[in-house]
Amino acid sequence: MLFIFVGVGMDCSVTPLKHGGLSLVQTTDFFYPLVDDPYIQGKIAAANVLSDMYALGVTECDNMLMLLGVPQKFTEEERDTVVPLIISGFKDAAREAGTSITGGQTVINPWCIIGGVATSAVLPNEIIPPHAEAGNVLVLTKPLGTQVAVNARQWKDQNTERYKRLINSKLVTPEDIERAYQEASYNMAHLNKQAASLMRHYNARGATDVTGFGILGHAKNLAKYQPNNVKFVIHNLPVIAKMAAIAKSADKLFQLLQGYSAETSGGLLIAFPREQAASFCRALESSDGNPAWIIGVVDNGERTAVMNAKPRVIEVVTKIT
Amino acid sequence: MLFIFVGVGMDCSVTPLKHGGLSLVQTTDFFYPLVDDPYIQGKIAAANVLSDMYALGVTECDNMLMLLGVPQKFTEEERDTVVPLIISGFKDAAREAGTSITGGQTVINPWCIIGGVATSAVLPNEIIPPHAEAGNVLVLTKPLGTQVAVNARQWKDQNTERYKRLINSKLVTPEDIERAYQEASYNMAHLNKQAASLMRHYNARGATDVTGFGILGHAKNLAKYQPNNVKFVIHNLPVIAKMAAIAKSADKLFQLLQGYSAETSGGLLIAFPREQAASFCRALESSDGNPAWIIGVVDNGERTAVMNAKPRVIEVVTKIT
Repeated sequence: MLFIFVGVGMDCSVTPLKHGGLSLVQTTDFFYPLVDDPYIQGKIAAANVLSDMYALGVTECDNMLMLLGVPQKFTEEERDTVVPLIISGFKDAAREAGTSITGGQTVINPWCIIGGVATSAVLPNEIIPPHAEAGNVLVLTKPLGTQVAVNARQWKDQNTERYKRLINSKLVTPEDIERAYQEASYNMAHLNKQAASLMRHYNARGATDVTGFGILGHAKNLAKYQPNNVKFVIHNLPVIAKMAAIAKSADKLFQLLQGYSAETSGGLLIAFPREQAASFCRALESSDGNPAWIIGVVDNGERTAVMNAKPRVIEVVTKIT
Repeated sequence: MLFIFVGVGMDCSVTPLKHGGLSLVQTTDFFYPLVDDPYIQGKIAAANVLSDMYALGVTECDNMLMLLGVPQKFTEEERDTVVPLIISGFKDAAREAGTSITGGQTVINPWCIIGGVATSAVLPNEIIPPHAEAGNVLVLTKPLGTQVAVNARQWKDQNTERYKRLINSKLVTPEDIERAYQEASYNMAHLNKQAASLMRHYNARGATDVTGFGILGHAKNLAKYQPNNVKFVIHNLPVIAKMAAIAKSADKLFQLLQGYSAETSGGLLIAFPREQAASFCRALESSDGNPAWIIGVVDNGERTAVMNAKPRVIEVVTKIT
């Protein structure tokens, strides 16, 4: 959830209820398709909505609504083929999350829109608030570079001049681009649920999910809401293999190494006590099948986040090919 | 809330929660602007979202989220003028409803989108379920004809051929059209909250709100979810003054007198015991300043709704000029 006008800082809204000491945790997200498989796109949309809730350590979602804009240019056949696949992906991701979709809204729109609303009524102790301390370390649970991968795949599909230059430069092969796109799709559709459920066990000190503002943008936002005077320093950037090279070659298009490349349904950025971070990463990899990385440290500072001038890029090679 | 694909019948989703015997009542709606005042449009959007909740007799909304699509063609100046007005209208309506907006999502879109999500955690006895009985009567709390009024105003603004024919026919005057548009705007922006809060007191036996399917479409939907074998018969159609004449002259464009003209943020259609319906109407008018009408009866039947072949049109003259 990112709401630039009304101005809410954290990933979810948390509203005290009149009943039973409960609070309502809510988030909504809707956006436009970025992969060409409607089923995977549905899963990505659901994973992206739920991710805001997982960032608070809330692992049980009580209810989801779905938001859909069906392109006005769709023929009846396109609509009847594509829309059920999107819904099916969204539903399957919701089922995987242990929740269900009980309603929503569909409109006709020039562009395809996919999104949803996730809601949970929780006791205060079910939420993990931001409370990082100097000496903590920062963990990231998915590799960066989804936007680069999705764009590069589009250049390839359309055989653009930029694509031809890229291939001629020998920086990447067409296969690298295809594999990065598959890796990005897999990661975007993957729920942050397991990461969220392990947060409490390893004494997590607050988290956010990485989406449109990029890793540094979201790190800054998480820093802003800290009760302690802390500063986040990012040293390592786990990036889908070869995407850092593309970002470098594309000049200022992505700002990946500066920390500002937009991600969709990115990983959780979590602060942990130093001695528990590695255990969390191991536990996540063994239960979830996906690696996580210690990417930075928490220092004393004025509630901000900075990037090491020369961050170390970790090339993340897919296991899904 | 109308979700044609996932298929949920009633106005809100109602989901049992894991805590305290509570249920989550939720609804979402988003659509495109239909009036030219952005502030009023914001109010209409909020009233329309909340209306689904009011139809269940739930009068306290715990939380709202706002959904916005900002037109890509807007200049910066247009955006900075229009968007804050929309948000301001939405917020003011939420405040009037005793709730607040804690988040949402904004995207850039070819068309302007305005909508929201309303959520309440309630005890089961806070919801008034559909349980109409033969002998009950049907009450409607806002006049019909909003779509006709909004369209006629647009024809007038654009001085279309249809508009010229209409004025030449002497069926309506330009002033009639302007007044109807103002009346429609007022009604669409008006909350159904007061009507909802009086429902229980007058022993209401279930309700729905009238929106895109028209009065008969929504009556049929409400009939479908009845536990008893009932049929709704609509005899009277309260319509914004002169809009029935326009609908008749526009051939099959609106289907107003057939009960299928779309409404936005329409009134509640409520079943009451016969002896309490008039008292409800009087109480609503004295507290809310707006009339309500007994428009039909509940007979025995197969959970459907029908329109009297020659419904009596009640010309509703505005008090707001």
